Amino acid sequence: MNSIQVCFSPSQFEYFNDPESIVVVVDVFRATSAMCTAFEYGVGKIIPVATVDEAREYKSKGFLAAAERDGVVIEDFEIGNSPFDYMNPKFKDQTIVISTTNGTQAIEVAKNAYKLIVGSFLNINAVSQFLKNAQRNVIIVCAGWKNKFNLEDSLFAGALATLLIESQQFSTSCDSTLAAMNLYNIAQNDMYGFLENSSHRNRLRKLNLEKDIRHCLTLSIYNSVPILENGVLIKAK
Amino acid sequence: MNSIQVCFSPSQFEYFNDPESIVVVVDVFRATSAMCTAFEYGVGKIIPVATVDEAREYKSKGFLAAAERDGVVIEDFEIGNSPFDYMNPKFKDQTIVISTTNGTQAIEVAKNAYKLIVGSFLNINAVSQFLKNAQRNVIIVCAGWKNKFNLEDSLFAGALATLLIESQQFSTSCDSTLAAMNLYNIAQNDMYGFLENSSHRNRLRKLNLEKDIRHCLTLSIYNSVPILENGVLIKAK
Repeated sequence: MNSIQVCFSPSQFEYFNDPESIVVVVDVFRATSAMCTAFEYGVGKIIPVATVDEAREYKSKGFLAAAERDGVVIEDFEIGNSPFDYMNPKFKDQTIVISTTNGTQAIEVAKNAYKLIVGSFLNINAVSQFLKNAQRNVIIVCAGWKNKFNLEDSLFAGALATLLIESQQFSTSCDSTLAAMNLYNIAQNDMYGFLENSSHRNRLRKLNLEKDIRHCLTLSIYNSVPILENGVLIKAK
Repeated sequence: MNSIQVCFSPSQFEYFNDPESIVVVVDVFRATSAMCTAFEYGVGKIIPVATVDEAREYKSKGFLAAAERDGVVIEDFEIGNSPFDYMNPKFKDQTIVISTTNGTQAIEVAKNAYKLIVGSFLNINAVSQFLKNAQRNVIIVCAGWKNKFNLEDSLFAGALATLLIESQQFSTSCDSTLAAMNLYNIAQNDMYGFLENSSHRNRLRKLNLEKDIRHCLTLSIYNSVPILENGVLIKAK
């Protein structure tokens, strides 16, 4: 039986010391939802970078680059982390460099994991299937908000843990996993309503991003699982 | 309207930067439950220290000292963090030095707060009343387990946040507070059962501490609110 742990913030990853586990990084609103969308629409590679300066450096070398902070596209970039930015046929087979407020930091802290894959509600069944096939312990790393806990990533963690435990190949004795599963159990029939008062939902609402929120809460419409190889995300085979 | 935030781990306190808030530290199993019990039974002062070595140094100077790690009393100490250790008439008006696995570390990280008080289910109504009288923003700091999230401290945070919000003097836009309130709402009618599979409950069960667990989950039988003044806990007036 493989184990599941949930890490509620990148700043806590150091306390989940298990180099043999597969790490799933999630940032529902919106970095990992955007990445899953990108691969589904044919993007070839994504280079996640922690800082805007790194993204800018790649951009100056001619790379396609995306950068977002606090929900807003950085001014000298054309794309940010809206999933809809990545549904562009021009990006097919291209490499895109991405830096976001939380998601790319979460990838950074966990990049030395045995394997690192990227999850979102959009590809949750594919992620679950990948993990069942891999037969390894799992750590779900929530990007959170500036190192704090957030609700939407925790709901994803609870949903994924529930799928894995239902398969009877996984179990958990981790309190944060139990908490996430309980929260998902309350929210599952109306995640949009459950998140009504959440801090990030309100942040995005102020930016008129309701369409993005709805998209990011859609379950399992994509089959791609992004996986990190030598610092670059590609579509897992 | 004053705000409530919940910090799920001492290691995250740095991200809750608000020197004007009152901090409530909780370690349900068992440090802060023991401290609340101690004051109710007449202990005069508690000196919380982060390390066993510090506790040993005080002990060598003739202080009454308690030390616990991983649920077990350290061998050269007579008391640990069982609330029942502190129901001793001999301790009346005495000063006790305490070091525990998680609780005293949580006090350490938050010791420079505007005010720091100690909460547990045992004195939750008294803590709630103290905060309503104080009319300040509140940060509830969960001791957790070795810097990770735990369920029992989160339930306390949810219970206290619920009491405060019901008073209509407080509100929250903090995701961890919303999560804690949702968890408490599920668990409130049977906290003992809800914690059945939690990691620390199992740790304590292995040590035959069911009696302690029952005691620590008893609501509001004590009126004392321990408060930190110059590094020493005393009973708030």
